[in-house]
Amino acid sequence: MNGIILALNAGSSSIKFALHEHRLAAQRLILRGAIEGIGAEPRFTAWQPDGAIIDREAWADAAAPHEQLLQPLLAWITARLGAAELAVVGHRVVHGGPSFGQPVRIDTPVMQELERLVSLAPLHQPHPLAAARAIARLRPGLMQVACFDTAFHRGMPAVAASLGLPRAYADDGMRRYGFHGLSYEYLAGRLREFAPELADGRVIMAHLGNGASLCAMRHGRSIDTTMGFSALDGLVMGSRCGSLDPGAVLHLLQARGLSVAAIEHLLYQESGLLGVSGISADMRALLASDSGHAREAIELFVYRIVKEIGALTSVAGGLDALVFSAGIGEHAASIRSAVCRALAWLGVECDESANGLHKMLISTAHSAVRVFVIRTDEEAVIAAHAAGVLRASCPPQAAAG
Amino acid sequence: MNGIILALNAGSSSIKFALHEHRLAAQRLILRGAIEGIGAEPRFTAWQPDGAIIDREAWADAAAPHEQLLQPLLAWITARLGAAELAVVGHRVVHGGPSFGQPVRIDTPVMQELERLVSLAPLHQPHPLAAARAIARLRPGLMQVACFDTAFHRGMPAVAASLGLPRAYADDGMRRYGFHGLSYEYLAGRLREFAPELADGRVIMAHLGNGASLCAMRHGRSIDTTMGFSALDGLVMGSRCGSLDPGAVLHLLQARGLSVAAIEHLLYQESGLLGVSGISADMRALLASDSGHAREAIELFVYRIVKEIGALTSVAGGLDALVFSAGIGEHAASIRSAVCRALAWLGVECDESANGLHKMLISTAHSAVRVFVIRTDEEAVIAAHAAGVLRASCPPQAAAG
Repeated sequence: MNGIILALNAGSSSIKFALHEHRLAAQRLILRGAIEGIGAEPRFTAWQPDGAIIDREAWADAAAPHEQLLQPLLAWITARLGAAELAVVGHRVVHGGPSFGQPVRIDTPVMQELERLVSLAPLHQPHPLAAARAIARLRPGLMQVACFDTAFHRGMPAVAASLGLPRAYADDGMRRYGFHGLSYEYLAGRLREFAPELADGRVIMAHLGNGASLCAMRHGRSIDTTMGFSALDGLVMGSRCGSLDPGAVLHLLQARGLSVAAIEHLLYQESGLLGVSGISADMRALLASDSGHAREAIELFVYRIVKEIGALTSVAGGLDALVFSAGIGEHAASIRSAVCRALAWLGVECDESANGLHKMLISTAHSAVRVFVIRTDEEAVIAAHAAGVLRASCPPQAAAG
Repeated sequence: MNGIILALNAGSSSIKFALHEHRLAAQRLILRGAIEGIGAEPRFTAWQPDGAIIDREAWADAAAPHEQLLQPLLAWITARLGAAELAVVGHRVVHGGPSFGQPVRIDTPVMQELERLVSLAPLHQPHPLAAARAIARLRPGLMQVACFDTAFHRGMPAVAASLGLPRAYADDGMRRYGFHGLSYEYLAGRLREFAPELADGRVIMAHLGNGASLCAMRHGRSIDTTMGFSALDGLVMGSRCGSLDPGAVLHLLQARGLSVAAIEHLLYQESGLLGVSGISADMRALLASDSGHAREAIELFVYRIVKEIGALTSVAGGLDALVFSAGIGEHAASIRSAVCRALAWLGVECDESANGLHKMLISTAHSAVRVFVIRTDEEAVIAAHAAGVLRASCPPQAAAG
């Protein structure tokens, strides 16, 4: 199977995309891009693989929903590709629910099933589905594939997936799913490439972006993770509270009379770094601030990471490697340094010079735990999965010659 | 100050009590007792300090609320004491809210403040307040003291107390309080008595009863704990789920249409060991069962303890001692053994023979972490606090001679 693959990662305020060429099962990045500021001031940017900007422009009007932005995006891609044609589109879909443990071709029954999963991730699931519907209208014959953030965690032990609710709720899909699976899959693959002796060990990956989670792995597979049933659980995030005593939710309903919608907004949009600092959901802004409240928010962010690393280390039975990734994990050296200092009891020793330079290996030679910084690439995994589904659906061709 | 102290621990289905004599600041247990089966078949039992039964009888009718049971209780105590008189009654009060960090004499303004805290612990706070009101009616002149389960955790670092919500909510009392503080205070005191070299170290106490929590201590003070804003958070319990993704609560409201009252009942009364096993909330029944579902519930109980011990170890910066206490912690050797085996990565080594005999020290001589079983005694702490408040409120007497 040869062809061009469009990987789409449609979130609430941005659509990230990448074009890859597949040839003889090898994958090559052609370009990547993003439409950011959706709902406010949509702007389009595309980059070459080396980071050089190809194109940057303001797009459409502020109110344009995702669907309306896909038409100019597909037009831009078509013009850019010239004679080459898109073979398949892969989507990052947050929730695969109990059914989907593998990437799947999106047809009508699959789309219906994915729509039923909206109730499991009401804030995240609708965006890729809207994008897939728009592309089906614009390019009726183009194959589309859903790649799930939950799939990587599907093999988690049952005990790690349990919410402690009555069995009937568990049987009905109320379990811990885990997210950021496409990122973890990419990171596990990269770790296996350059540190194969560690890839089968006890590893914790820290995907620290605007959404943030940790994943404990053994033998390259997820054994537990901090995000649970929803993308709200676990670490403190940009504007999400992370783990929260369920009794606090009941209190907001019973004693404070907040509506469910108001609580959802509070926990997803107004809490976390933003809520505690009162300043920003963006770690860069907090690190640049000299406000005491910003420091408190940063301290809480680090504290919860340290605490959850302890929790995951305990169920993994120790720790061989720690991997930082995503926006904060890749770029905030002071956060990495603070986490490592607090993990000195585990034998973690950060090489501050390597850390300051954002090197790939940032632990000292004496560190009992090897600590890495790896740039994640969810779109590369989406492209590989989409290519795989395309290949599996094509009749094998007779070898030439 | 000399006198007889009644310590009362009024829960939803039982009232536990103890009588202590205070003389020259030393405290001596006279007897202990309980009214169990409240709301069903109330039965009264009293024991001598050595455990011999003094009295056992069925009491009142099934519908008798707590208040009606206090009259025969006070009558029984009065008859038993003969010429001696009660000097003070101490109550276990679950929630001290943001205001109460110390035991306090219950007067009208304090009672009003404690009633305002009912919204923070709607299932636990009303019982001791009802008992205190009944005693105020029955013995108008008798001093009563409230002792708080939250007080021991009051010095927790702010970062450990944060819920990650916007500051206005934190300022308005929405923080992690922690519970089982009277038990932890007792255990910390006992540990200091017989292992003073450990009492200032990094210690985790496991209060594993029908309600269950862990507390991490340094220098004998709480630095973090698994129960948070409410008594619902943290470990899996008899019928409580423990920590639960707040997104799961939103889902129960939004997608499944459960009422707030139904969710409260689900999370407090139908989940945890009972919900997962479908058999019982009582660990003894699960350990005696050969059902696979009972095994799953036990496995989840142990898993969450092991995970949370890792979390607390990480914020404590390592672990010197682990203490098991309360019903399950004191009596379920197989649970202690399973937890210790899973903590082998921390250097924990259980002496299975000592563990099977429920000895006080159950770790081997080589264990990197010393592991203890200590019987807790919340009533002894309540009595000591009540005596302290009484003493502080009495004018000093001129020394004789």
